[in-house]
Amino acid sequence: MGLKTKQAYIDSIRRMKPTAYMFGEKIASVVDNPRLRAGIEATAATYELAQMDEYRDLFVTQSPLIDEPVNRFTLPPMSIEDLVARVKINRTLGNWVGTCHQRCTGLDCLAALSIVTYDIDQKYKTDYFKRFKEFLKHVQRNDLTCNAGVTDVKGDRSLGPHDQPDRDMYLHLVERRDDGIVVRGAKAHQTGSLSSHEIIVLPTRAMKKGDEDYALAFAIPNDTPGLIHVVGRSSLDTRELDGCDIGNTLFSKYCPTVIFDDVFVPWERVFMCGEVEFAADMVVKFSSYHRQSHGGCKSGKIDCMTGAALTMMEYNGTEKAGHLKQKVIDMIHRAETLYGCSLAASYEGKVQPSGTYFIDTVLANASKIHEGREMAEATRLMVDVCGGFVADLPSDRDIANPEVGHLIKKYLKGKEGIPVENRMKMFRLVEKMAMESADTISDIHGGGSPEAHRVTILRETDLEAKKKAAKRLAGIDEGQPSRK
Amino acid sequence: MGLKTKQAYIDSIRRMKPTAYMFGEKIASVVDNPRLRAGIEATAATYELAQMDEYRDLFVTQSPLIDEPVNRFTLPPMSIEDLVARVKINRTLGNWVGTCHQRCTGLDCLAALSIVTYDIDQKYKTDYFKRFKEFLKHVQRNDLTCNAGVTDVKGDRSLGPHDQPDRDMYLHLVERRDDGIVVRGAKAHQTGSLSSHEIIVLPTRAMKKGDEDYALAFAIPNDTPGLIHVVGRSSLDTRELDGCDIGNTLFSKYCPTVIFDDVFVPWERVFMCGEVEFAADMVVKFSSYHRQSHGGCKSGKIDCMTGAALTMMEYNGTEKAGHLKQKVIDMIHRAETLYGCSLAASYEGKVQPSGTYFIDTVLANASKIHEGREMAEATRLMVDVCGGFVADLPSDRDIANPEVGHLIKKYLKGKEGIPVENRMKMFRLVEKMAMESADTISDIHGGGSPEAHRVTILRETDLEAKKKAAKRLAGIDEGQPSRK
Amino acid sequence: MGLKTKQAYIDSIRRMKPTAYMFGEKIASVVDNPRLRAGIEATAATYELAQMDEYRDLFVTQSPLIDEPVNRFTLPPMSIEDLVARVKINRTLGNWVGTCHQRCTGLDCLAALSIVTYDIDQKYKTDYFKRFKEFLKHVQRNDLTCNAGVTDVKGDRSLGPHDQPDRDMYLHLVERRDDGIVVRGAKAHQTGSLSSHEIIVLPTRAMKKGDEDYALAFAIPNDTPGLIHVVGRSSLDTRELDGCDIGNTLFSKYCPTVIFDDVFVPWERVFMCGEVEFAADMVVKFSSYHRQSHGGCKSGKIDCMTGAALTMMEYNGTEKAGHLKQKVIDMIHRAETLYGCSLAASYEGKVQPSGTYFIDTVLANASKIHEGREMAEATRLMVDVCGGFVADLPSDRDIANPEVGHLIKKYLKGKEGIPVENRMKMFRLVEKMAMESADTISDIHGGGSPEAHRVTILRETDLEAKKKAAKRLAGIDEGQPSRK
Amino acid sequence: MGLKTKQAYIDSIRRMKPTAYMFGEKIASVVDNPRLRAGIEATAATYELAQMDEYRDLFVTQSPLIDEPVNRFTLPPMSIEDLVARVKINRTLGNWVGTCHQRCTGLDCLAALSIVTYDIDQKYKTDYFKRFKEFLKHVQRNDLTCNAGVTDVKGDRSLGPHDQPDRDMYLHLVERRDDGIVVRGAKAHQTGSLSSHEIIVLPTRAMKKGDEDYALAFAIPNDTPGLIHVVGRSSLDTRELDGCDIGNTLFSKYCPTVIFDDVFVPWERVFMCGEVEFAADMVVKFSSYHRQSHGGCKSGKIDCMTGAALTMMEYNGTEKAGHLKQKVIDMIHRAETLYGCSLAASYEGKVQPSGTYFIDTVLANASKIHEGREMAEATRLMVDVCGGFVADLPSDRDIANPEVGHLIKKYLKGKEGIPVENRMKMFRLVEKMAMESADTISDIHGGGSPEAHRVTILRETDLEAKKKAAKRLAGIDEGQPSRK
Repeated sequence: MGLKTKQAYIDSIRRMKPTAYMFGEKIASVVDNPRLRAGIEATAATYELAQMDEYRDLFVTQSPLIDEPVNRFTLPPMSIEDLVARVKINRTLGNWVGTCHQRCTGLDCLAALSIVTYDIDQKYKTDYFKRFKEFLKHVQRNDLTCNAGVTDVKGDRSLGPHDQPDRDMYLHLVERRDDGIVVRGAKAHQTGSLSSHEIIVLPTRAMKKGDEDYALAFAIPNDTPGLIHVVGRSSLDTRELDGCDIGNTLFSKYCPTVIFDDVFVPWERVFMCGEVEFAADMVVKFSSYHRQSHGGCKSGKIDCMTGAALTMMEYNGTEKAGHLKQKVIDMIHRAETLYGCSLAASYEGKVQPSGTYFIDTVLANASKIHEGREMAEATRLMVDVCGGFVADLPSDRDIANPEVGHLIKKYLKGKEGIPVENRMKMFRLVEKMAMESADTISDIHGGGSPEAHRVTILRETDLEAKKKAAKRLAGIDEGQPSRK
Repeated sequence: MGLKTKQAYIDSIRRMKPTAYMFGEKIASVVDNPRLRAGIEATAATYELAQMDEYRDLFVTQSPLIDEPVNRFTLPPMSIEDLVARVKINRTLGNWVGTCHQRCTGLDCLAALSIVTYDIDQKYKTDYFKRFKEFLKHVQRNDLTCNAGVTDVKGDRSLGPHDQPDRDMYLHLVERRDDGIVVRGAKAHQTGSLSSHEIIVLPTRAMKKGDEDYALAFAIPNDTPGLIHVVGRSSLDTRELDGCDIGNTLFSKYCPTVIFDDVFVPWERVFMCGEVEFAADMVVKFSSYHRQSHGGCKSGKIDCMTGAALTMMEYNGTEKAGHLKQKVIDMIHRAETLYGCSLAASYEGKVQPSGTYFIDTVLANASKIHEGREMAEATRLMVDVCGGFVADLPSDRDIANPEVGHLIKKYLKGKEGIPVENRMKMFRLVEKMAMESADTISDIHGGGSPEAHRVTILRETDLEAKKKAAKRLAGIDEGQPSRK
Repeated sequence: MGLKTKQAYIDSIRRMKPTAYMFGEKIASVVDNPRLRAGIEATAATYELAQMDEYRDLFVTQSPLIDEPVNRFTLPPMSIEDLVARVKINRTLGNWVGTCHQRCTGLDCLAALSIVTYDIDQKYKTDYFKRFKEFLKHVQRNDLTCNAGVTDVKGDRSLGPHDQPDRDMYLHLVERRDDGIVVRGAKAHQTGSLSSHEIIVLPTRAMKKGDEDYALAFAIPNDTPGLIHVVGRSSLDTRELDGCDIGNTLFSKYCPTVIFDDVFVPWERVFMCGEVEFAADMVVKFSSYHRQSHGGCKSGKIDCMTGAALTMMEYNGTEKAGHLKQKVIDMIHRAETLYGCSLAASYEGKVQPSGTYFIDTVLANASKIHEGREMAEATRLMVDVCGGFVADLPSDRDIANPEVGHLIKKYLKGKEGIPVENRMKMFRLVEKMAMESADTISDIHGGGSPEAHRVTILRETDLEAKKKAAKRLAGIDEGQPSRK
Repeated sequence: MGLKTKQAYIDSIRRMKPTAYMFGEKIASVVDNPRLRAGIEATAATYELAQMDEYRDLFVTQSPLIDEPVNRFTLPPMSIEDLVARVKINRTLGNWVGTCHQRCTGLDCLAALSIVTYDIDQKYKTDYFKRFKEFLKHVQRNDLTCNAGVTDVKGDRSLGPHDQPDRDMYLHLVERRDDGIVVRGAKAHQTGSLSSHEIIVLPTRAMKKGDEDYALAFAIPNDTPGLIHVVGRSSLDTRELDGCDIGNTLFSKYCPTVIFDDVFVPWERVFMCGEVEFAADMVVKFSSYHRQSHGGCKSGKIDCMTGAALTMMEYNGTEKAGHLKQKVIDMIHRAETLYGCSLAASYEGKVQPSGTYFIDTVLANASKIHEGREMAEATRLMVDVCGGFVADLPSDRDIANPEVGHLIKKYLKGKEGIPVENRMKMFRLVEKMAMESADTISDIHGGGSPEAHRVTILRETDLEAKKKAAKRLAGIDEGQPSRK
């Protein structure tokens, strides 16, 4: 046991037998499916970098729980240093994979559970925290990847869980047994669910009296009977399957909808069951951590996008154009803004009763609000800098065609001395980073909708202190009666 | 002859035999290829609407040249009313097809030629204008679609045409014969080249002494020997081929690179040949017209995107959310801005020596600058309003699978009473409008790069008048000596 | 009678004897008060330009009502040409005065009244339209300036007119007599009320049953007994009074609060009295016209700001800096956007039952939304280009001081050959244009609050047409039952 | 000696006898001039808070140099904790004074000198660092305020120091004596120069061979013979002088131009003299620190602006308007962005050879770029939320006038129960925060021009690492020859 190599991780995923569908067909081997494999490779990078000399110190730390070195993606933050490392490993990985590495959400769940299970126990004398710690030891000892089963499909958004005409629109308890519970429902946008060993489920929203059956948290292996992963379509999803015009030659992302068709969860894996007033706290903690994670990985992706833009300027012969340099600066500025706010959220973190460190939510959400707007702008800038072939570059198969291949290579070249293949590869990468829906849309909807980030900021800010400051300067003494 | 029906147009395209490649294979029948057909259908809409009672008056007008009713896409504007109609038919079509209809560029070339050929003749006693008018009669009488062969592949952007190590990087004359000329080069981003009867070629930039061989304008059928269309890859290009998860069930867009591999052009189809000082005027006229066209079609596309967002709010049960209404307003505002500036550019147009009306370039470019930024923002807003399934909606093939289809339909439903299929279809359309590279990237690079639009505004503005106004108010009399 | 000269206008204002206060003191002579005079001069420019060869054709037109040439500021638009001229005279004046000329609001009231009084008469057989036309003849024959008494002080914004604890918070009827009515209330932000011959009062918002006493429209001279003008403070208001460091050496703006302390209005000047359901129409018509007016004058002001920035670049020796040119382009782009949308709103205007032409409200509001954001941005760009002395330039009085004057002149000089006085004057003008509150804050709040512009756009847009377009493309046939 | 009380600080400033002019007159007593006093009070707050229980721990720390508690504004940062405290005391003060407190620039100079003097000594065996430490002890022991004499007047910006036609456009050495040097020139925008005990001079830009006489750093008391402070005009500068309609009833800001008319500086106060290659480092260090300081104080000012907006919503009865809450969120988001990036710049700081800690320049400049744009936007949002009376509120003198005072108070009231005076005071404060030029223009030009911040980001970023990441993903191996 202990830290897994990249290969050991892939082997361990190969050993799992999840029920999965894609394009209407059942998937026989997840790791041998080129589309899913590209996503698994992105997660595998979290194992690989942990074993590289250059990155080991950043990725590996000692777990106080099992007293062994662990990958940080299995460690709820126990210090400010841990909070800071979260952002830095995410930026490193975002840059390394140029897309989503898909392992952060599991950590964000572990971190949320490590706080809230303790708090529930304090109120109800339950033993969720103990169960959670046993699960966490298992995760750490086996260097497991976890997935965040948070986003319910939600049906009619104007109705709460128990008001839905079809009560399965939010995952809920359908049977309570001696040995565990049976649950039903579906979770959408389950980034990397087939690259994960464990699926952790948390409630997706605040709940109230009447929603008891919906206030659930638990963890189960991704191949638990009744679990069905339906891999959704993404904009470039046939490229990996075709093995041509892939763009990002190493990594990709996929997002299943995961259906819980009466799935059994043993009690030792249940971390919340009916304590409705803690649902809000569970989802707020998770999503705040997750919004902060994005500040790392997305700034890392912009680094990569900036690199693509700069390289393309070289290839096109435009590296001296002042207006393009301005656009590169605008890209860097966006990366640093996400990173800066997210880092500050770490440094300003505070310890919670359970001993876990929690980030500053206002700063974490400030970062995410920028992401929701500015990733699109960074992408637009990259496309502007690189040129129109992002839209319509001929296929590598056209290059391979002896009738026209030589003509395409002749006409697609840029600056003298740059191999035309390199220019075409870079255009493909830019296309991938700009136009891949699974990744780009998480800029907007990852970690909750943009409005949720905004509302959080308003709720978590001390508005009265600000009003008091203004009144003092204006000379308003509210103790005094009107001079009217 | 005269106005073609939609069917007659498609038949006429079927009769052409262009050399075309896609994904490394030669295309036997353009109209029977589902991907190309979706683009051809979009152009076909320009014929269909011209025959519908609701739109005929807008689309059809009397040609003073052939004294017959013609489709406005064959008529260089001869009045302010014609200039205004350009914007309105484009907005109507943008909304109708939800993507690019691909017929505007040809009109923009015709309009530019109708001005500049006249001006060249005035200087050089050439007969380009007469040749052009004969060609125009042919286009009008046969209701042809033309394509704009403007954007050269350009090689090293820091070098001009005749400085390129490979002189074919800009299309140029390789032989001058008694009966015509032979040309070589390649034009990129040739939207709808296979949906067009004629390819019109114009220079892509200003030229100077030494560039004589590059200062060319002409028109040839799309199946002229030596012309090779290589259809580039777009982000969703396999969807139409697969016939599944198409999104826009009716229309699409494609963009070949067109290679001119020693193509012969008869003299009667040559409209410029060596008059370098008119190259700038040709491309400026074309691109100003074209930037204005975008103000129409792109506002029409936003209309459609707004409709998708509003529909999705109904389907999701979020139609009363104030923050989403604000986003819808932001979308509408962007559409009206593009439209308003583009309309104003028409109304403020001026007649040119040849009798053609030309738009106000500053206002046309003001519209385009907004497009370059704000289409991306309108798209982001649409995705924000609609929700995360734009990224990863299960395939229709999964729906058709008897093992999981019923579960997917169960869990993807929104508000009670809305068929789940409708909600899924709308998500697919949103995915198409947001993530289709061929169309979205033309927001940025169509009609020249964003920087070109900006430079045009600066060049075409009367800066001295503005300085004079400021000096008068500041009390600066520049006639007076310094009081120093 | 007929068109007044600038001098005749000022003489006519001198003859009026309004009750006015400023800084706690009663103003003896409005035209001799330097602060008010600078505002009056701005309005006087509307008379002056109407008599200049260069501008007469733009400013003067024939009135069909009195069959004499009149200044356009007294003519409700009777054609598309009139609507277009509105925007162009406003841009010309905005550039000429570099601030607000203060005469547009009166025209916007006349235009609204010329539509709505007719409509009320159609419903109630009243004779408001006839009364209005008599008033209009008076205005035209005497070339009068009118003011828009629209914005009530409003008290508690969460309550309607008749729900206010103090019912005077909206101007209302207090007595109905045989010869007229007596009204009480106050109107805020009465730009140029002392430069106007007549105060036109319109309701400030939609009204409903119970608000009858508040549904009033009328016109009275600015020195009617009971009318009290209290000139509010603006950021640079002491500069004109001191006669030093004025910045805009010719023109300025001021905004009184006008109190109606039981003011009598004769029936022939009452244009609405109790018809609550027309209040909304009155204010919507006025404000739409007014928002469009801003598209003209504010783009003219940006012209002047752009001129100041360009001049300063010359003076500072920075005229070749690429990043500053980009900022100038950004300024020009904003001017053209306001202008383009506003012009388009004119060209797309429609005739109303009374014969008056009304603009396209969506386009007019699109322009105003840009103004609300982009004037601040244009201002910021101007300050960025010009430099930090906008904040803290030494006074002309310091220049005049023999001990330090020579040193200041030595150290404030820019590029060789530019008189230091010119550079200082230009800094002062920039300070005035950037930091004068009366003018800059009207960018945001003039013509109603920014949210009002947005709500108007949503209300006036055909949302169903947009939804229909999206559904057609998505392949949704709502006639069909769910395939569920 | 040791920490000064607020009163002791004011007394110490009273004892200085600087030569100062304002509005053309010599100022007899700086502390008795109400305009200057309001600025001095803002600096005095840095002394007052250091003695308040609530803030002492934040403001006071032990100096390792003199082994006594000192105000942090006299301590070059010796640890990450010190770097972090910089941001927090600035945010606290920005909120406390609602404007600029004017003491940060001195600290930023001390910090820059504490690094660069050491580095110069290492190269040239000079003893600048020792001199500097002696000076620093003096500053710490007497709790002095220092001013940053950085921004030269610069003449023609296209020319370097020694190329100017008048060589005094950059401050320079005119005589080198045994006991010191004589300097001539002028520094602009000297915020708080008369509130400071010492003027620290640094070079304003990078220098090169030939500029030796301009590469100067030194410190002198603000009343040194030959120093002339000319207090420039700001937009609301007469308000404090008049003692009426002040807005911020406690604090303000002023900015002199300081002329060095052949001023003697003793050697022990000279910290750089001719070492041209260190000029760049000196100004880069200073300006990076200073840009970071802004991230603190300006976020504190936004806090205060947000408080004003929220209070005004209460007073106006609009506290439940959703669109106004959105604007408040936008304000908070901007504050947190400035703060977050600035904090992160601290936490990521690094120790320098001299032992001083320096911030991360990219993150510090990322914060400043936001400030340059977003303070204007936050201000616009505040004005939007509060309403139009920011432009033209009647004077307190009008309130005091018995003829109209009662009417103004009647009509300016908002929601029932809110004293009208409070609403008016809050409008005045908003006017002050929005329209005061000395403070608002420093958002743009403080710490160097916006372009300087951008260029810094580009220069300090590792562009090659980004390119490498993109190439790896694209599959580009630059070691291999082209497959062409």
